[in-house]
Amino acid sequence: MYKLIDGVPSLTQTMKKTSYVMQYDNRTRNAAWVFEILNEKTLDKKKKEAEEVAERSTKFFQDRMIHEYYRASKEVYRGNYERGHLAAAANHKWSQKATDDTFLLSNIAPQKADLNKNDWKKLEKKCRNYTKTCRNVYVYSGPLYCPTERNVSKITYRIVGDKAVPSHFFKVIILEKNDGTLDVECYTVANADNQPYKTRKLYEIERMSGLVFSEKSPSVSNEEERVTVRWKAEEKTSEMNSVDTTFTITRSQDSKEQVF
Amino acid sequence: MYKLIDGVPSLTQTMKKTSYVMQYDNRTRNAAWVFEILNEKTLDKKKKEAEEVAERSTKFFQDRMIHEYYRASKEVYRGNYERGHLAAAANHKWSQKATDDTFLLSNIAPQKADLNKNDWKKLEKKCRNYTKTCRNVYVYSGPLYCPTERNVSKITYRIVGDKAVPSHFFKVIILEKNDGTLDVECYTVANADNQPYKTRKLYEIERMSGLVFSEKSPSVSNEEERVTVRWKAEEKTSEMNSVDTTFTITRSQDSKEQVF
Repeated sequence: MYKLIDGVPSLTQTMKKTSYVMQYDNRTRNAAWVFEILNEKTLDKKKKEAEEVAERSTKFFQDRMIHEYYRASKEVYRGNYERGHLAAAANHKWSQKATDDTFLLSNIAPQKADLNKNDWKKLEKKCRNYTKTCRNVYVYSGPLYCPTERNVSKITYRIVGDKAVPSHFFKVIILEKNDGTLDVECYTVANADNQPYKTRKLYEIERMSGLVFSEKSPSVSNEEERVTVRWKAEEKTSEMNSVDTTFTITRSQDSKEQVF
Repeated sequence: MYKLIDGVPSLTQTMKKTSYVMQYDNRTRNAAWVFEILNEKTLDKKKKEAEEVAERSTKFFQDRMIHEYYRASKEVYRGNYERGHLAAAANHKWSQKATDDTFLLSNIAPQKADLNKNDWKKLEKKCRNYTKTCRNVYVYSGPLYCPTERNVSKITYRIVGDKAVPSHFFKVIILEKNDGTLDVECYTVANADNQPYKTRKLYEIERMSGLVFSEKSPSVSNEEERVTVRWKAEEKTSEMNSVDTTFTITRSQDSKEQVF
């Protein structure tokens, strides 16, 4: 049975992009989470052009790593929804390719215009600001599909532009401070107008999202080592841009795979 | 970053049980699919006791392979829903352990009593009947969460006993005939009273479920080989029961993992 040798059907697909890692959820046609590492170097604006393009770009791409059945189209959203970035374009200006990858439609979710312009942007800025006082800022961003307060035993979501409309968005932010200690901050914000973001406990986001972040959460000990990873991207000019990120890892005995 | 070395958070989890393979979906607290192989041997009633227990068993188990946040409780369902098996207990009487595994709550979804007793049971019998004329019958069963006909851009589902209530269920049945040729039959049935099952095309189930079954579908050619797998289970009496299944596989070049 070929399927059992070479893979099994899956609702989800985990993918590495130039500037982030993502798990895509076929059923909602949205990412389940997007993971980024931010630091002073990744926020370097290597190319003036990259910055300009990022600012003015309205070019969104279909993600061809996703099966055509579950790949969101470029259809414009109804109902005052904008194309909300999970990994922010402004986080990845070290390379044009890295910026472009944030415009993949797999990294986009239908987001109320007011949220996209206000509190979601504030959370993105908060992450970037932490790079001033932290070695690395690890960010998971994703959608939530929660019941309403009125009826906690019913889930309802709309579909626009092929995609499920999340009821909320979350960010799980892991701060690796300059002294090597770690801290976690978690936020959710309703996908609605004029809603402020809320501080959350990690377990709340875990229960709501279906994702466990903490089981093997990063910890710093003497047995760990510092590793530097170079991310590379080839620009349209054939020039290579790269950025180095150094972080602390724990090598577990059964570790088989290194995503980067 | 430990997470990136040793795993990433995931909405889904693929697990091997004694008698089936399953992908579990944390968000709905239901399986995304359950995969079984049926043939004359797996349907052998090795133990009279096993058969009796299977018939009368009302013992359901929490699945401890699933994180406690997403593990369904033993709470009784409201709203005339029964505990519908995805892998049927009657399919796995070759061993008591194999039968017991079908009573894991991960293999159960809230199913209308009428459906559980009628058309879902008919589909299960259809699968077992095919073993009389086929070498092997490969069955994927799972839930669907479809929009209503009235509003195709809205998905709504209830939660009972921690679990999402599917709008429909599907079966994808791959028949390996005695002459080695393959055939596929697909069915859906609404999770409602007095609904007959419907014949479907594979692509319809793929689009509705978020699962691709066909990309690397089984095919029979000269380059393939016949493999016999022995499934084993230790009974409570410490006796070992086993069953042999012989099927045709294609070994792909990049195959890394064999589930069985």
